[in-house]
Amino acid sequence: MTATRSPQHSPAGLPLAITQGDVCGIGPEIIAKFFRSADAAGCFVVGDMGVMRRAAAWTGGMLALARIDTPADAKRLPPNCLAVLQAEGLAPDLLQAPIGRVDRRAGAAAARCIEQAVALAQRHEVSAIVTAPLHKEALAAAQVAFPGHTEMLQALARVPGQAPPAVRMMLANDELRCVLVTIHMSLRLAIEALSFDAVLDTLRIAHQAAAAWGQTRPRIAVAGLNPHAGEGGLFGDEEITTIAPAVEAARAEGIDAQGPFAPDTVFMRARHTATHHGEFDIVVAMTHDHGLIPVKYLGVEHGVNVTLGLPFVRTSPDHGTAFDIAGTGRADPSSLAAAVRMARRLAARSPGAADQG
Amino acid sequence: MTATRSPQHSPAGLPLAITQGDVCGIGPEIIAKFFRSADAAGCFVVGDMGVMRRAAAWTGGMLALARIDTPADAKRLPPNCLAVLQAEGLAPDLLQAPIGRVDRRAGAAAARCIEQAVALAQRHEVSAIVTAPLHKEALAAAQVAFPGHTEMLQALARVPGQAPPAVRMMLANDELRCVLVTIHMSLRLAIEALSFDAVLDTLRIAHQAAAAWGQTRPRIAVAGLNPHAGEGGLFGDEEITTIAPAVEAARAEGIDAQGPFAPDTVFMRARHTATHHGEFDIVVAMTHDHGLIPVKYLGVEHGVNVTLGLPFVRTSPDHGTAFDIAGTGRADPSSLAAAVRMARRLAARSPGAADQG
Repeated sequence: MTATRSPQHSPAGLPLAITQGDVCGIGPEIIAKFFRSADAAGCFVVGDMGVMRRAAAWTGGMLALARIDTPADAKRLPPNCLAVLQAEGLAPDLLQAPIGRVDRRAGAAAARCIEQAVALAQRHEVSAIVTAPLHKEALAAAQVAFPGHTEMLQALARVPGQAPPAVRMMLANDELRCVLVTIHMSLRLAIEALSFDAVLDTLRIAHQAAAAWGQTRPRIAVAGLNPHAGEGGLFGDEEITTIAPAVEAARAEGIDAQGPFAPDTVFMRARHTATHHGEFDIVVAMTHDHGLIPVKYLGVEHGVNVTLGLPFVRTSPDHGTAFDIAGTGRADPSSLAAAVRMARRLAARSPGAADQG
Repeated sequence: MTATRSPQHSPAGLPLAITQGDVCGIGPEIIAKFFRSADAAGCFVVGDMGVMRRAAAWTGGMLALARIDTPADAKRLPPNCLAVLQAEGLAPDLLQAPIGRVDRRAGAAAARCIEQAVALAQRHEVSAIVTAPLHKEALAAAQVAFPGHTEMLQALARVPGQAPPAVRMMLANDELRCVLVTIHMSLRLAIEALSFDAVLDTLRIAHQAAAAWGQTRPRIAVAGLNPHAGEGGLFGDEEITTIAPAVEAARAEGIDAQGPFAPDTVFMRARHTATHHGEFDIVVAMTHDHGLIPVKYLGVEHGVNVTLGLPFVRTSPDHGTAFDIAGTGRADPSSLAAAVRMARRLAARSPGAADQG
């Protein structure tokens, strides 16, 4: 019983921070549910004691809450104890924000929690950050200048005097990993944002990131933008002018990239199941929905969002704030649990927590 | 043994025409394989005797071929006999077109077969048309002015002096039915082509079509165009300016349309399985790939393409010419078989064959 557990001697052994997300959505509830499982050992919440106490009550049964002063304290708590590192700068009347509605105070609080979790990661006090869902309209109502987590984390990870790191959103489940070239912008702007560099950077980031799950030379499929990947130029020329040259450049760097392939069949070809060995390890998609539709199609319970390219590990569940069921205690914590498992797995191999800074 | 079979007294009892598709692709092979099953009784091919004889040889085993002069002759043949109505106007050296390559002669032949099958449907000599895959570049090489089947069928179905019928492509499998507002054009042009009328027409066509599979008031979900369906205007305004007003107008006509919903989750919500009762009967998608990615994700074996809005029934497999395996005899006829089953089902309820003309 005196043997030390190996996670405590690797970056993965550091405490794991979970941000509480938009308090008008299901974030606090799925966290409270998750903390009733043994999987939550070593995790703590960056959030608000009052909000988490309310969420614990909504989700039924006994759950001890403990306010901690430092992440390291989370490791000293008994099982099934919800550790909360009280975030600073939250609205005093945050609990008055109406459940299931867009609220400026909730948007601002979600941003504060993320900022403070990133600061902990940058000081190497946590192994990884898992973020509960925020609401993009609430962020906007709070005058937060980022459309979502990914863009905000990118800005917070910027080293002064340098350009922000190139980051990409990956959505993954047991069958499929999709990395997106463009995300939170209109489809019109997404088409404008496609460039040789944007595609090549995505391929580089995806290639490098795969080492964290044990693949040093992943097989990367690139989905086209247009129907039938442009059908030889009949249905659009971005495949010819932009995507294919970027694939070629990536291959010249030793990246096993192939494509562009027709968007409507490449995800099916990449799908890994017990009976179907996928042809690819990663699919790079040009738009948010080309990539997310197939990952989410089988159900969002096990999907995990991973931000690639950051100097720390960050994952999140692949669902939103679910305003329609917030406050009912019905929300399913499965995707949050999957996000924590993925974060631990990536942190165990990540150079971020141990080597940087 | 003298009882007449009911199909012969309904439109569904008429012979069913299968066009042979691009002869450089897998069309002739999947047809030859399909004709070895009892499901092919009452079907015939609009194509070329030489091409079909070659395909029969490639797919192994005995298969009798019979040249027929009229569709009605197909009903008089013994089982497992591949009936061919020789198409007119095909290149004399069609068999020289290289397998697995884009060829002008193959593109032209595919078009001729479709034209002749449509003429049979317009004369009420067939219950339905099932089309084997063609290759869009080969069509273009043959100077055929249509990017695909759907557009060509629409033009052929036009009544002189009238506008062509409004048609829409539906892709369906056991889990999901998607109807597409735009199809074979670049994503840039697809965004431009979205309009109030285009969305409303799609909703009307989808609503009316559902009667053919027994739903008089289908629950129709409308997917947005932009990520998160525009997130309240943050990521594009087509949902606000175009899609939502069309949904509202459709509802005012008594159509049970809902949305626009976020594209990345609406298909999952609509999915019907043994354990998940879908929330919707049909999903209307703004773009080709938003709709086809989820239908194809689980595999194309059982997907069927249906053209809605034509005065006759037309279905097809949801895969392409598969040039990479053409000529090997390996192609899977499952999707063609599913297309024939769907065509028979729709023809049994369709007013087209019996009432029109």
